[in-house]
Amino acid sequence: MTTRRDFVKKGMAGVLASSILPLSYDKTDLLKEKKEDAFKLGIAGYSFLHFKLDESLAMMQKVDVHYLCIKDFHLPYKSTADEISAFHARLKESGVTGYAVGPIYTKTQQDIDNAFDYAKRVGVKLLIGIPNHEDLPYLEKKVKEYDIRFGIHNHGPEDKLYPNAASVYSKIKDMDPRIGLCFDMGHNKRDNQDPVADLGKYSKRIFDMHLKNVSAATKDGKTCELGRGVIDIPAFVKMLRKSGYNGVCSLEYEKDMKDPLAGIAESVGYFRGVCDATK
Amino acid sequence: MTTRRDFVKKGMAGVLASSILPLSYDKTDLLKEKKEDAFKLGIAGYSFLHFKLDESLAMMQKVDVHYLCIKDFHLPYKSTADEISAFHARLKESGVTGYAVGPIYTKTQQDIDNAFDYAKRVGVKLLIGIPNHEDLPYLEKKVKEYDIRFGIHNHGPEDKLYPNAASVYSKIKDMDPRIGLCFDMGHNKRDNQDPVADLGKYSKRIFDMHLKNVSAATKDGKTCELGRGVIDIPAFVKMLRKSGYNGVCSLEYEKDMKDPLAGIAESVGYFRGVCDATK
Repeated sequence: MTTRRDFVKKGMAGVLASSILPLSYDKTDLLKEKKEDAFKLGIAGYSFLHFKLDESLAMMQKVDVHYLCIKDFHLPYKSTADEISAFHARLKESGVTGYAVGPIYTKTQQDIDNAFDYAKRVGVKLLIGIPNHEDLPYLEKKVKEYDIRFGIHNHGPEDKLYPNAASVYSKIKDMDPRIGLCFDMGHNKRDNQDPVADLGKYSKRIFDMHLKNVSAATKDGKTCELGRGVIDIPAFVKMLRKSGYNGVCSLEYEKDMKDPLAGIAESVGYFRGVCDATK
Repeated sequence: MTTRRDFVKKGMAGVLASSILPLSYDKTDLLKEKKEDAFKLGIAGYSFLHFKLDESLAMMQKVDVHYLCIKDFHLPYKSTADEISAFHARLKESGVTGYAVGPIYTKTQQDIDNAFDYAKRVGVKLLIGIPNHEDLPYLEKKVKEYDIRFGIHNHGPEDKLYPNAASVYSKIKDMDPRIGLCFDMGHNKRDNQDPVADLGKYSKRIFDMHLKNVSAATKDGKTCELGRGVIDIPAFVKMLRKSGYNGVCSLEYEKDMKDPLAGIAESVGYFRGVCDATK
């Protein structure tokens, strides 16, 4: 079978070259293919806090998602080169790419050294983390030295360092452009900020994103299924396109963390429904 | 917490009367509330073929869906009045309404009698079934006698009686308007018909709907997650609105039937994403 999604995955040329168009294939599919989005859907490793790698990959296959931000509980910081190779091979078997590592909390310059060393050994060009303010100049040296981009994660009203996107941006706007944001739209909303407007404002420095919705725009807001919260996801998707975001929207699902598959699946479906309906 | 979906469920007046608007509540929510869709999302009982009622209701609660088309494996035809009352009470505890019964295959006029008797005892005003062609005049007498609407289900290219929507409509178009269709959009597509166009054509006689997508527009097409098939769901939702359909879109999920929750959740999310994004 060749479905509309296959066309998106394989690319039009590949499909046209390799198969005969099925009867069900409408002209409109070709038009849609031309509008394939620059951004990709992924899953933030933290969503799988209570699951081993194989269980996590099985869930990703179930929902047909192919990008994972790697957390250390799946690939420990002290992994050997062989362990890292085996990890990537396992992901590849599942059709998954580990595109970044983190979030990693760094309390010292040594922690930052270790994080960059880890990212380099893992072979990714994007590191998500939470550096202390006084370490930002040191961080700037490291992104230059390694040519690895660093996305700083915002964590809502309780976060003394980076409660929201604006607080990250104000610190890094004059620094090396390889320092940017891992924009957590849910924590941003919990800090009573506007995730749609902030995506538009800071998109050039947003390298990664924790895709989620929350139940309230206050510190008591909790992660919920993507279509059930207070953030207007259709408006957010439109802004993803308008701003030209071309990174991963990594679903971070923090509800029912010991039994998250249904909520992940509903959220993935909702995101794709919004994307398909607004193309 | 008061989310956007609460406003939809409770109705604006109820929410305004009963709670203070949260900080997160945007003016746009009020506009959206005005555009609440006439159609409702439900689940066709057949999706839960391998599950007891309680397990099925738990899945419905998980995905926040509140309308169920009742199948006999959850409420046997020979149920007593007390058993029927207990059934409805159990649904009510889960916030679910059993809005119709079926599909019921009827091979004889006695089968039709039994089906109407069952629908009346269950207390629903809509019966989904598959009558023989020669029984249609008898069926017409029964809908008049009971004032219960009857939706005929189409079942794709293998179905000698009703392969597609047009084949149902041609038989019933001059009959009592209480005879109509349970439009199975997936089987319609498997018969290489156009579900979007057919929804538009026959909407006035469509009383119920099996919401689904399929992997191909041929007899080999299989039910798949709602966003992964060959039917253009955004176009379908737009036609639901254009045609003024005000019944239930009852998800019939026939993939992974022994472990359907993730696929149901993804499909529910996809449908809601499309609906929210096209309002």
